[in-house]
Amino acid sequence: MNILVFGAGLSSTFLIKYLEENALKYHWNITVVDKNSSNLNQRVNSTNTKTIVFDIDDEITLNDLIQYAELVVSMLPAQLHLSIAKKCIQYNTHLATASYLSKEMMSLDEDVKKKNLIFLNECGLDPGIDHLSAMKLLDEIRDSGGEIIEFESFTGGLVTPDSEDNPWRYKFTWNPRNVILAGNGGAVKFIHNGKYKYIPYHKVFRRTEIIEIDGYGKFEGYANRDSLKYRETYGLHNVKTMYRGTFRRPGFSKAWNCFVQLGVTDDSYQLPYSEGMTHRDFINTFLPFHPTDSIELKFKSNLNISQDDIYLWEKIESTGIFSNDLISVKNGSPAQILQHILEKKWNLKSDDRDMIVMWHKINYKSKAGTQNSVHSSLVCEGNSRKHTAMAKTVGLPLAIACKLILSKKIKKRGCLLPIYPEFYNPILDELVTHGIKFKEKYS
Amino acid sequence: MNILVFGAGLSSTFLIKYLEENALKYHWNITVVDKNSSNLNQRVNSTNTKTIVFDIDDEITLNDLIQYAELVVSMLPAQLHLSIAKKCIQYNTHLATASYLSKEMMSLDEDVKKKNLIFLNECGLDPGIDHLSAMKLLDEIRDSGGEIIEFESFTGGLVTPDSEDNPWRYKFTWNPRNVILAGNGGAVKFIHNGKYKYIPYHKVFRRTEIIEIDGYGKFEGYANRDSLKYRETYGLHNVKTMYRGTFRRPGFSKAWNCFVQLGVTDDSYQLPYSEGMTHRDFINTFLPFHPTDSIELKFKSNLNISQDDIYLWEKIESTGIFSNDLISVKNGSPAQILQHILEKKWNLKSDDRDMIVMWHKINYKSKAGTQNSVHSSLVCEGNSRKHTAMAKTVGLPLAIACKLILSKKIKKRGCLLPIYPEFYNPILDELVTHGIKFKEKYS
Repeated sequence: MNILVFGAGLSSTFLIKYLEENALKYHWNITVVDKNSSNLNQRVNSTNTKTIVFDIDDEITLNDLIQYAELVVSMLPAQLHLSIAKKCIQYNTHLATASYLSKEMMSLDEDVKKKNLIFLNECGLDPGIDHLSAMKLLDEIRDSGGEIIEFESFTGGLVTPDSEDNPWRYKFTWNPRNVILAGNGGAVKFIHNGKYKYIPYHKVFRRTEIIEIDGYGKFEGYANRDSLKYRETYGLHNVKTMYRGTFRRPGFSKAWNCFVQLGVTDDSYQLPYSEGMTHRDFINTFLPFHPTDSIELKFKSNLNISQDDIYLWEKIESTGIFSNDLISVKNGSPAQILQHILEKKWNLKSDDRDMIVMWHKINYKSKAGTQNSVHSSLVCEGNSRKHTAMAKTVGLPLAIACKLILSKKIKKRGCLLPIYPEFYNPILDELVTHGIKFKEKYS
Repeated sequence: MNILVFGAGLSSTFLIKYLEENALKYHWNITVVDKNSSNLNQRVNSTNTKTIVFDIDDEITLNDLIQYAELVVSMLPAQLHLSIAKKCIQYNTHLATASYLSKEMMSLDEDVKKKNLIFLNECGLDPGIDHLSAMKLLDEIRDSGGEIIEFESFTGGLVTPDSEDNPWRYKFTWNPRNVILAGNGGAVKFIHNGKYKYIPYHKVFRRTEIIEIDGYGKFEGYANRDSLKYRETYGLHNVKTMYRGTFRRPGFSKAWNCFVQLGVTDDSYQLPYSEGMTHRDFINTFLPFHPTDSIELKFKSNLNISQDDIYLWEKIESTGIFSNDLISVKNGSPAQILQHILEKKWNLKSDDRDMIVMWHKINYKSKAGTQNSVHSSLVCEGNSRKHTAMAKTVGLPLAIACKLILSKKIKKRGCLLPIYPEFYNPILDELVTHGIKFKEKYS
């Protein structure tokens, strides 16, 4: 059977490794495609794996490749999936990705079913492992006659405790732009105690909760844009509270909120002459004019930071925003320039390791009428800067799903999320053998 | 000479009246077009004025009308000007409007010049009288060898002191939607002491200044979105401070900021089930859940409103947002629903009158090297709800400009703003005879 993998970037590391390790046993012929040959050299380990350097704009080669494949895995940017998906329908090929199921992809559902195919989406980490683990818990409770009252879920892409060497205890382990723009561009929606609630962007980082994870200390969660997104998907129509969010270390949100309050995370306009400005000039652009006060003093007074709030202040100072270093971004948006400044401090160093933390809380009424609660948490530490927890937790669920599809273990057809027992049971079980294991606490 | 006026809404009242009163003297034949016959009946006074009920989608009639006109005045919504403008070029007709000069309109500049025509834009109140009065002051200072250091300008559409019968001392005198969305959708830009400054939307209503106008007491100004828009137009390339804003009565901004902080002015998403909600339920949507605290208490604690800030609180309460009245807007955005609630309180009553307040401040260095300052202010009170200050100050400058164009007093050609002496001197002089007079104070 032929497996065709598009994309051999960092996040494909464990996906390709898993497929290669199981190729002989399951009689798979693997082809990995990337437009960059060094990606292929770094990620492909076995001489049995075929590699092709090629840009997917080349339609003739694309047809050739897809028509002989039983399964295509796309790790390309999400906007490239659709043209691949259409060819998979044409050539009767299954498809699997870790990306969000788009409306355009969903519009192919009927055609996919007609061809008796599986187009699996959102089978990475977040989205992916969050679905698998949440649905397993929710289904277990419902199967035993329980009724779900509250559902909360948080995920964070962080660094291991030994790599937390700045006051924010944070570094960029994934696309920094998404970190800078988190929460931007609309109100946060959720349900609390049966009522819809909306929080505007400029208040998101002030409504946080603290959660402790055994052995790793405390984390702080802020709300994601659309907490209600999976309400229907998870069958939680009548849930009283639903809240999904992102983990950081405590204190992160309060400090990050300073940037939000000043408007430094805005991506909607460009600063003329940003190239060659100092960090200091840049931050002063968001502070009122004063004939004598220093920029630091204006920052504090404008944001009501008291003189003795040293934990907040050491975070702000540690970013280097008050330095006289030069900005090398041309006509950047405030968000782009802030990213540029933070990358100087927050990029991973050679011995830094990333860490994934996921946590669900479900409150439910048991069949007997008692109020029960279950907390479920996962921590996954990366091995190194090249073998990250992110790549592991994105790649392994997808790779295991590929095995299930090709082994004809999946009965469902169409454009799917991995929310069914035939996905979540075997994938979660096998993830445990790779050290990716949820700890559950009932109370 | 034939003058063709498109649009006979409320804001055309004084424009049509002026043209009719001068028709005999200047040999004008006036035609007024509106798709609504009752508008024509209300606004047209003279039997010599021709009226036509007609929708401008009807191209044949449009051609007929424009080809026999020497001058077209468009009071239609701005997006309708362009198709009229193209026909004006085709049929060699001058054009005048009170709307912002759009990029699309400006792209016709060369064709307009080739045909030796005048397309006058932004000749109403704001934009309009602000240009006329600011440019006259700026040119006078520059002509006498002065150098402009600072330029500030504020305009407000308010109500007369005897109509200020709510704690905000404010009512809707123009499009309420623009009032609700003021400042929304991007950062405010200005220059202060030679530095670019940016304020995010959620802080705009906290950075205000207080200005006193003789005989009318104090006003409060908050910044407009783009204070730098007319920097080139006004020849202020090297100005150290440039700030343009909107007037309200003192305390308005602090109270309005409560709505901004909660996210109630957001127009980017819709609330499901908004129809039939109470005002109280609506505001609770933006407040955190609490098992026992009242909505009023949550409002106060969430926004740090102290118990003794009675002036702020009476404003908030007077809007009726805590009432159990029902909302009749279907799936509205927060901004639409807030508008709906405020319209119940802030619409003009039958004997209310509107009031326009405009103020400029210019600091400059005289030829002799001294630091000088000039303040220039205008207050115009409306006569009644049908003869508003807004209609007067929008319509008269435009009508006078039409007279100047038809009397061949204007030498410039192309797509113009009224920033030249041949416009501002005669228009400002004649406005004085209608009671629209700036008071200047030098110091």
